[in-house]
Amino acid sequence: MEDKIYMQRAIELARRGEGFVNPNPMVGAVIVKDGVIIGEGYHEKYGQLHAERNAFKDCKKRGNSAKGATMYVTLEPCCHYGKTPPCTEAIIENGIKRVVIGTLDVNPVVAGKGAEILRSSGIKVEVGLLGKECKNLNRIFNKYMATGKPYVVMKYAMTADGKIATKTGESKWITGAEARKNVHRLRNRLSGIMVGVSTVIMDDPMLDCRLDEPAVNPIRIICDSHLRTPIESKIVQTADSIKTIIATTSEDEAKVAELEKRGCLVLRLPKTEQGIDLNALMVELSNRGIDSVLIEGGGTINYSALKSKIVDEIHIHMAPKIFGGSSKSPVEGAGIESINDAIRLNPINTSWLGEDLVIENEVIY
Amino acid sequence: MEDKIYMQRAIELARRGEGFVNPNPMVGAVIVKDGVIIGEGYHEKYGQLHAERNAFKDCKKRGNSAKGATMYVTLEPCCHYGKTPPCTEAIIENGIKRVVIGTLDVNPVVAGKGAEILRSSGIKVEVGLLGKECKNLNRIFNKYMATGKPYVVMKYAMTADGKIATKTGESKWITGAEARKNVHRLRNRLSGIMVGVSTVIMDDPMLDCRLDEPAVNPIRIICDSHLRTPIESKIVQTADSIKTIIATTSEDEAKVAELEKRGCLVLRLPKTEQGIDLNALMVELSNRGIDSVLIEGGGTINYSALKSKIVDEIHIHMAPKIFGGSSKSPVEGAGIESINDAIRLNPINTSWLGEDLVIENEVIY
Repeated sequence: MEDKIYMQRAIELARRGEGFVNPNPMVGAVIVKDGVIIGEGYHEKYGQLHAERNAFKDCKKRGNSAKGATMYVTLEPCCHYGKTPPCTEAIIENGIKRVVIGTLDVNPVVAGKGAEILRSSGIKVEVGLLGKECKNLNRIFNKYMATGKPYVVMKYAMTADGKIATKTGESKWITGAEARKNVHRLRNRLSGIMVGVSTVIMDDPMLDCRLDEPAVNPIRIICDSHLRTPIESKIVQTADSIKTIIATTSEDEAKVAELEKRGCLVLRLPKTEQGIDLNALMVELSNRGIDSVLIEGGGTINYSALKSKIVDEIHIHMAPKIFGGSSKSPVEGAGIESINDAIRLNPINTSWLGEDLVIENEVIY
Repeated sequence: MEDKIYMQRAIELARRGEGFVNPNPMVGAVIVKDGVIIGEGYHEKYGQLHAERNAFKDCKKRGNSAKGATMYVTLEPCCHYGKTPPCTEAIIENGIKRVVIGTLDVNPVVAGKGAEILRSSGIKVEVGLLGKECKNLNRIFNKYMATGKPYVVMKYAMTADGKIATKTGESKWITGAEARKNVHRLRNRLSGIMVGVSTVIMDDPMLDCRLDEPAVNPIRIICDSHLRTPIESKIVQTADSIKTIIATTSEDEAKVAELEKRGCLVLRLPKTEQGIDLNALMVELSNRGIDSVLIEGGGTINYSALKSKIVDEIHIHMAPKIFGGSSKSPVEGAGIESINDAIRLNPINTSWLGEDLVIENEVIY
């Protein structure tokens, strides 16, 4: 029971790294002696100290000794030299007696080896406490490590009758302030944000991350087969300060040069039936360290992304409003013919953000 | 605390009358002496004994005397001669000492008078325990009594991307078995079921109520401006055994005669911009004792009903499936132009039926 409380605390701490640690995992650690937390920490920012070392630092700062204590850590401590020395060393040096691990690392250079090194040093190691929660915390990291492809979340806001705009095209705003703030939290958490060029042409959005607390802008990715992105769009005009990728199948060298001059990175991709080969795009993004992508597109790109099977989660924001009419819907494209061919979801969570209902689903392939 | 438990039991009992008591309210009653339930009952069927009298009957059958006991009853006891003698008389005769009432009756011939008669006979009367729940129990009865119009529930099943059919028109079945069973519970609970003629032409449904337990078929109401309902449709062919109303603006006497020959009741109604004047239709239905209507129509009738402001609740059954494409949506018609003109909902409940999400909303006018 007590063990759980400390691991819960470690999870809480881990979450504070959201948006700042990608493509690293979020990790939290708590050091407990005689039923008292004597030190705690989390991985705060990519390239900086790991959670375990931050917890030792905190422990020392408070004037405590970790000798004989228990460490609760959401993810298996690393045992390799990366940007920082291995955490297993720090745990052994500090005289920790028992380590409780939420989940093993899927990174093949760690994967069970970290736990093994601790055990062979005489430390008691337990694995799996709140394992599901700890694993869930790093579903981005886990997919990225296991498949080399980014974790993709699709988000759309629709009315209770499935519309994303009125018949005249009005779409600002379907949902309320709280739901929209949640979208900015997603933009902070995920490394990239992807839309189709139609969204850029129609809405001229910034696709940046606006939160009251410090946040990170996602890298903007525009799917633009024919390079129709307007040079005067806000996105191109700010491409020198916020990273921007234009994915295309076009060979228009003049337009490419113009976009590149403004600071955009233009990626040439193969073509498929649906347009740009989104699987190839995901590999390209992954190669550039983008571990996760938020798709905030319209019905066309949403359908292509689902048909390309790149989407891991769909977050539906449903407003308690009815528009009626035959206006745009969140997933369009060619559409399926038979109900048996429907794209299947597994709802994992529902919550209210103000008056809007948020339904989070996994996509089942 | 104990009081609440007994009232909760009375509410549970009341619900057993669902579908059988319309247009009467559902009522439950529990008699308690020295902390023991000595009798209980509910209004079982329209025209039969009220809850209070059933509770006394049960009390006697068990060999108990209600003298000095407390009665918990979800709705104010009646004090007028209707199909049965007033319940206030039975309460006084049986020597009840204290009556706890969930909510006062909105029926003007009772409305507070029942409680007053009990008080003037020296009985201790308390009103309002679990009042919200008791009132909610009879939202159909309350609207019908207060406005003389039926309580209208609109139900539609849609995918997670707001479609009610695939692009080829396939719609059987969008939701799973549990959600569909819930629809039959609604059909049992509400007195009438209404669809547009397009649904009859396309799906040839029975619109009856199929449940494992005893249930009541709703009266079928077809909105059919131009009398296009096929004579060979299942609905017309079974109109002699299940009550069927065809609402029209047509003057085609031959077709009317043909439908009436098969047992349909044809109602001639004024026309509005949206087609049949649905407000006038609601009054006609109300005059025929129909206290509640379930709309299971397509996008056209759904929009008309919402624009006519006859709808009290919308139940959305959302399946974890994506169809894509530009197929039919649950509310169509002309549609609104500006987001500010959206029809507003107040979500009152969400629940899971199997894998389908059910969102119950009040409509705000």
